Amino acid sequence: MNATAIIAASGIGKRMKLANGGCKQMLEIGGFSVIYHTLKAFEQAPSIHNIYLATRAESIPLIQELAASANIGKLTAVVEGGKERQDSINNCIKAIEVKRHQSGVTPDVILVHDGARPFIQPEEIEEIARLSLLFGACVPATRPKDTIKFIGHDPEFFGETLDRNRLVQVQTPQGFRSELLMQAHQQAEAEGWYSTDDAALVERFFPQQLIKIFEMGYHNIKITTPEDILVAEAIYQQLQAHGNATSEAASAS
Amino acid sequence: MNATAIIAASGIGKRMKLANGGCKQMLEIGGFSVIYHTLKAFEQAPSIHNIYLATRAESIPLIQELAASANIGKLTAVVEGGKERQDSINNCIKAIEVKRHQSGVTPDVILVHDGARPFIQPEEIEEIARLSLLFGACVPATRPKDTIKFIGHDPEFFGETLDRNRLVQVQTPQGFRSELLMQAHQQAEAEGWYSTDDAALVERFFPQQLIKIFEMGYHNIKITTPEDILVAEAIYQQLQAHGNATSEAASAS
Repeated sequence: MNATAIIAASGIGKRMKLANGGCKQMLEIGGFSVIYHTLKAFEQAPSIHNIYLATRAESIPLIQELAASANIGKLTAVVEGGKERQDSINNCIKAIEVKRHQSGVTPDVILVHDGARPFIQPEEIEEIARLSLLFGACVPATRPKDTIKFIGHDPEFFGETLDRNRLVQVQTPQGFRSELLMQAHQQAEAEGWYSTDDAALVERFFPQQLIKIFEMGYHNIKITTPEDILVAEAIYQQLQAHGNATSEAASAS
Repeated sequence: MNATAIIAASGIGKRMKLANGGCKQMLEIGGFSVIYHTLKAFEQAPSIHNIYLATRAESIPLIQELAASANIGKLTAVVEGGKERQDSINNCIKAIEVKRHQSGVTPDVILVHDGARPFIQPEEIEEIARLSLLFGACVPATRPKDTIKFIGHDPEFFGETLDRNRLVQVQTPQGFRSELLMQAHQQAEAEGWYSTDDAALVERFFPQQLIKIFEMGYHNIKITTPEDILVAEAIYQQLQAHGNATSEAASAS
């Protein structure tokens, strides 16, 4: 298995209200930055051969420095992110294409991950990579804990209640056979079509492609709002207690 | 405003894997039990005149003892819970009916709350009570942070992606004009009809009743799984730092 990871780490963290205008990827959990934890998990997953990371231009040197000091040897390129998340991922895909032409090697699958989800575990990455190759596409999801309703026609009031047993909350890493993801992004760019995630993009252009559900635990949170950092510390402590945290971080703290 | 609170605290905590067979309501956050925090918030909300709590028979003395030592003077009755959450709430409604016949006083609104949501704030209770009286029904909700999809016809694969901008995650306390909630529960009992929450029950029997959305913060979590307790500690610390935690708990810790 030869899998490539794309990590979207351009998040300016508008919702994080960072006083110094800093990036949420650089906030620390257990003494290590969010993006450190994320990169380490992919570094430790055997099927991942190459990592492409998209971030803001001004963050590129910082990420390269961090990767060098943390021995993230699989980090192949740090690419400048685009206007939207989808543009950033597309920029990474173009870098993967260039490398493919140079090397003649196409990765079997590509996994697209949010840089702000630091608690993904190497064994989960392995399983999603395996299922992506087997089924063509595999995406992790959890059951929503709360009842979900539609907002009504008048947005101040509720609309219909959805059957919770039929719903899942979608996470990352989202894995796809390489050709599938590459073609979906090419077509989306050609049509100027944007979607919330890569699964929705593949659904749009390859509606016949089934996407396998990988049932994920509740630890794989996305750091989005300021309160998430304290929540993340709590989850990190718990993962460490169960021996699941990235080993170097665990031994150093 | 004369509001009554119903607190559903029968949760046996199956998902909590409590080794001693204990109740998740008695787990501690910041040195105080989950149910202590919940009761304290309703005690401190001026519009709440009476609190009815439903719990397992064997937990009734424990709750009464806790309420006495914590000066929860508004706790009118601790009622034995039923088979389902809805039965427990209906048992409380029957106790409210008895008191109404004795006193001749009907509460303006009834707020139904999950005992396992300890971070509801008194001022949020006030606002939901006010809006429930104004609109007939008011329910708190947050925007989902993740993409939500349907599970497919084959449950191993995804179905349709839902438009996240049209979705909300529903929480408690859910507030209703008293007659509305009481009649909905009476009819549900007569028909043997069960629903996930009280809002869905009211929608079922009073489809013309609009339910106002109260936009809630992400702090109002429900303690459901073991990792939630560490997350809860993190949220509690943050609420304390902002001076929002229940004052007695804050000063004692």
